[in-house]
Amino acid sequence: MSPINNKTKKKPELGFGEKNYHKAVRFINRDGSINIRRRGLPGLGNLDIFHWFITTSITKLLVVIVSSYIITNLIFASLYYIIGSGHFGGIDSATEFNKFMSLFFFSAQTLTTLGYGHVFPIGNAASTISAIESLMGLLSFALATGILFGRFSRPKADLLYSNKALIAPYQDITALMFRITNKMQYELIECEASVTMVYNDTNTGKRAFETLKLEINRINFLTLSWTIVHPIDDESPLKNLTLKHLAEQDAEFIILIKAINDTFSQNVYSRHSYKAEEMVQNAKFKPLKQEADAKGKVYITVNDIHVYDEVR
Amino acid sequence: MSPINNKTKKKPELGFGEKNYHKAVRFINRDGSINIRRRGLPGLGNLDIFHWFITTSITKLLVVIVSSYIITNLIFASLYYIIGSGHFGGIDSATEFNKFMSLFFFSAQTLTTLGYGHVFPIGNAASTISAIESLMGLLSFALATGILFGRFSRPKADLLYSNKALIAPYQDITALMFRITNKMQYELIECEASVTMVYNDTNTGKRAFETLKLEINRINFLTLSWTIVHPIDDESPLKNLTLKHLAEQDAEFIILIKAINDTFSQNVYSRHSYKAEEMVQNAKFKPLKQEADAKGKVYITVNDIHVYDEVR
Amino acid sequence: MSPINNKTKKKPELGFGEKNYHKAVRFINRDGSINIRRRGLPGLGNLDIFHWFITTSITKLLVVIVSSYIITNLIFASLYYIIGSGHFGGIDSATEFNKFMSLFFFSAQTLTTLGYGHVFPIGNAASTISAIESLMGLLSFALATGILFGRFSRPKADLLYSNKALIAPYQDITALMFRITNKMQYELIECEASVTMVYNDTNTGKRAFETLKLEINRINFLTLSWTIVHPIDDESPLKNLTLKHLAEQDAEFIILIKAINDTFSQNVYSRHSYKAEEMVQNAKFKPLKQEADAKGKVYITVNDIHVYDEVR
Amino acid sequence: MSPINNKTKKKPELGFGEKNYHKAVRFINRDGSINIRRRGLPGLGNLDIFHWFITTSITKLLVVIVSSYIITNLIFASLYYIIGSGHFGGIDSATEFNKFMSLFFFSAQTLTTLGYGHVFPIGNAASTISAIESLMGLLSFALATGILFGRFSRPKADLLYSNKALIAPYQDITALMFRITNKMQYELIECEASVTMVYNDTNTGKRAFETLKLEINRINFLTLSWTIVHPIDDESPLKNLTLKHLAEQDAEFIILIKAINDTFSQNVYSRHSYKAEEMVQNAKFKPLKQEADAKGKVYITVNDIHVYDEVR
Repeated sequence: MSPINNKTKKKPELGFGEKNYHKAVRFINRDGSINIRRRGLPGLGNLDIFHWFITTSITKLLVVIVSSYIITNLIFASLYYIIGSGHFGGIDSATEFNKFMSLFFFSAQTLTTLGYGHVFPIGNAASTISAIESLMGLLSFALATGILFGRFSRPKADLLYSNKALIAPYQDITALMFRITNKMQYELIECEASVTMVYNDTNTGKRAFETLKLEINRINFLTLSWTIVHPIDDESPLKNLTLKHLAEQDAEFIILIKAINDTFSQNVYSRHSYKAEEMVQNAKFKPLKQEADAKGKVYITVNDIHVYDEVR
Repeated sequence: MSPINNKTKKKPELGFGEKNYHKAVRFINRDGSINIRRRGLPGLGNLDIFHWFITTSITKLLVVIVSSYIITNLIFASLYYIIGSGHFGGIDSATEFNKFMSLFFFSAQTLTTLGYGHVFPIGNAASTISAIESLMGLLSFALATGILFGRFSRPKADLLYSNKALIAPYQDITALMFRITNKMQYELIECEASVTMVYNDTNTGKRAFETLKLEINRINFLTLSWTIVHPIDDESPLKNLTLKHLAEQDAEFIILIKAINDTFSQNVYSRHSYKAEEMVQNAKFKPLKQEADAKGKVYITVNDIHVYDEVR
Repeated sequence: MSPINNKTKKKPELGFGEKNYHKAVRFINRDGSINIRRRGLPGLGNLDIFHWFITTSITKLLVVIVSSYIITNLIFASLYYIIGSGHFGGIDSATEFNKFMSLFFFSAQTLTTLGYGHVFPIGNAASTISAIESLMGLLSFALATGILFGRFSRPKADLLYSNKALIAPYQDITALMFRITNKMQYELIECEASVTMVYNDTNTGKRAFETLKLEINRINFLTLSWTIVHPIDDESPLKNLTLKHLAEQDAEFIILIKAINDTFSQNVYSRHSYKAEEMVQNAKFKPLKQEADAKGKVYITVNDIHVYDEVR
Repeated sequence: MSPINNKTKKKPELGFGEKNYHKAVRFINRDGSINIRRRGLPGLGNLDIFHWFITTSITKLLVVIVSSYIITNLIFASLYYIIGSGHFGGIDSATEFNKFMSLFFFSAQTLTTLGYGHVFPIGNAASTISAIESLMGLLSFALATGILFGRFSRPKADLLYSNKALIAPYQDITALMFRITNKMQYELIECEASVTMVYNDTNTGKRAFETLKLEINRINFLTLSWTIVHPIDDESPLKNLTLKHLAEQDAEFIILIKAINDTFSQNVYSRHSYKAEEMVQNAKFKPLKQEADAKGKVYITVNDIHVYDEVR
């Protein structure tokens, strides 16, 4: 019989299915990303360029921008070279390489609409290509503007989760608890939490889900830290379980946080998960240092969020 | 008597009216667009340029941008030509055609604010027109920036629906079911579904609507596939109906999906519909292949979503 | 005694206060704007430039852009003229006026970053001012980009309301009804309506409010027209009232519509109001023409929304 | 025993913790900002450049833009100077300082993509650096466009709160009340208020929270002013309390307002707080002047919102 106490009738629907993988699996990575890949779509079905531009690292984005700039200029320089450097005024024609480089920099000056004009097109072919290149340049930079704005204005919640979730004495009983705090300068308001336990049900051989009741699941301001508490009472599926049981059943605690970014009034979402190896039994969080200075301004020290004390 | 079992008191309001068209009609096209056109508004009442720019295909958009660019340059080149090529320095005045083309490319260099300067305006008339053209150019490209950003950042849910909806044995009874999955890289969360059946009620001679009760109408993550199930129990309007009945009554199953795009925290909507010819009786979906690799990363193969097996 | 039947206990709160103006007043104009002005804020307290740029007419916006362009160029041309035309190469110095105009056009070429270069600055003073002007130009056009995007992407519901609200026989009783339809190409979904009656209560001498119960207050799609119906049953405050009563009590029916613009998943709001003179007793709306063509595509003719027939 | 009457069972969760600071502390500043600082994050963990750009004052933003412009040009001018002024055409080479200044202005003309061309690069080194600079310029101005748009389109509620909260006779009992109005031109709709009292509980020695019941907590339009009223009935925690009690217990009334900006359909939030010294006992607000002109247009005078009369 499964030691997990699953009395709840109405099962939550996470959308992760019921398959038992018969090995250790984690649905939510520690950085909050989802550990599932969809594959097998025909062609480029699942490629969304804009999504990539918005979510990739700033380094990769810069590499793409700079290489596109170089490649585009190489292509247009080649076109100009094919037309012939005689169709351009002001070209350095000492060697073929010099000619090509002159045309390459002419292309850069055209693409960015810089247009110094010491090199300039003569005749229709050269002028047409450069008219096309400058239009392309403007559209590309319109795109870049959109991408940069999209990246910066993207709703995000950057939460710090305590390294460990604790199972600790709490009032008369015990409780599962972990702490979160806001890492950023903006305020998060109307903050809601939900915690679901995923585990291999040894009775059915399937992956099962239990929503854990929280003592408080909503706060108005996440300015300090928030200790999220699931009391392990008689109705809790964690009743009488040890970390060893949780590890055996490959349990994963999936945490969803929803809040509003106060600066932009945007809904933001954060995810996290704890597995047995990231949990500690018989430990208690040390209260965060929180003090008011002479002017009544209140300070907290957030990097103490991970600190806990063993309890005997 | 109508074979459809319409016990429900409270009728849903889809907003498609009660008219019986006396021929096969479909309200939602298979691509999710609505199959109704509003006409008869005075003048250009129902033209919304921005909406067109945002929703048209990328090819049409490019055609409009490129032709506007050419036409605008033709207009300004003509104005410059009327002023006289003597009011410009650096013009190629071998022939009248050469003059016009010089002015055409001068216009392009002005509109894009490229401004090489090998051709340049002399005197107030030519300078005024080119000052106007460069302002127009900047405003047009401001517009283009907005349009490109609007297109890319537009909330969208790109779902894959199973080709067929099935009527299949389900637990002790039968059920109507179809599957959806997310085609894109971004995650969809807090996903909700509703299914409404539209049909010609042979009793009243009107178009009638029935909302179908779903086994589960909300999941937290649409990372795998989701099989949406309407159990055909005693309360279902589909009780004892065959596909032949559905075809006779021109039934259409209208599906609305609402979710949140996790990357932008935007609400997104998707629609789909099935008619009798897109349904199969006595068939069951084959489970999607879903496996974990050595590192615990889970994979699913989404193009198997359409695969079903006949059931005897 | 007031003839209006105000049985409802819980009063709705519109936020328009209880003051009786002792003359005909309308809170919502027919175009949906609110007929109340706030004044008396110190200084420019209530000026929001961006709001003005977004909501003003396109003509006024163009006038502001073009005049700013001219004025800015006049200011910079004057600065350059004070520095002296000798600090510029390529100036037409035939007359003082020619000099000024050359500098004016040089300014325009600098502000738009066009920079032909046939006129160019010599020395630090002229170069510094032109470096400032080109920075200003870029920032202004960044602003213009934001304004144009803000205007186009602004959530809007452009609804057509029937010219008249009707009081008509409806099933066994009578009902207040009016019709709306969507004038635009985009679809409106999840559409909700609320109707509140505002009137001078002759008992209290104050402005009173009654929310009217609607037969249906929510539809899924506003693709056809929607006839919004308040049944005048025993609980209705309109029970036994005629248009003459309504006019005497300066009644105003305030309509709020909330929907989702399907293209952008934005919430949109629309307001309208009817007063007694815009209402007709004993009349019934003529059904809108709605037909399917050979391919099953459905058409409606929306400009018939105003058409009604007298009922004896 | 604490004189505050805390009968409510279910405690609200503001998220400000229970610490008693043993000195006067205020959680919400009078301008609505939160009076708590998070510190101690490793490195630049809590720095969000975009947030700073969006929320800083316009003056600071301009200082940053102008100094970045100058510094960038100094850096590129130095690079060009190292390459050697011989690699540029059109340089003023009278003195070394003149050379540097020529290169500085050449840099400005390149960064803004102005490109007059009277100074121009010769050879690959100079051309390469200027091609990089013009790309950098375009990307920077793309960024500036995003920042300016982000600032202007940022959801904001600019409310005016009455200077004082009053405790005044109200119907048969007394009530706590304060007034708000909208300072801006846009309309605020669907406006909701909540009021929480924070105080030092002398029984537990902890900071306690009580939500105050409001007579009306939601209005449809905030076009006039709104007087928010907490009736001090038998269930109110303020029952029998004087301002002196409130001051002794360091009570703070935290107000949260949520509304929708009608122009952009955005949710907006506003916060405010009152402490004992900002409250007046036995005073009543003077009604705001509100009048209709000959055309039926209604006017209110909002700067009278602070005016109250003593009550005996």
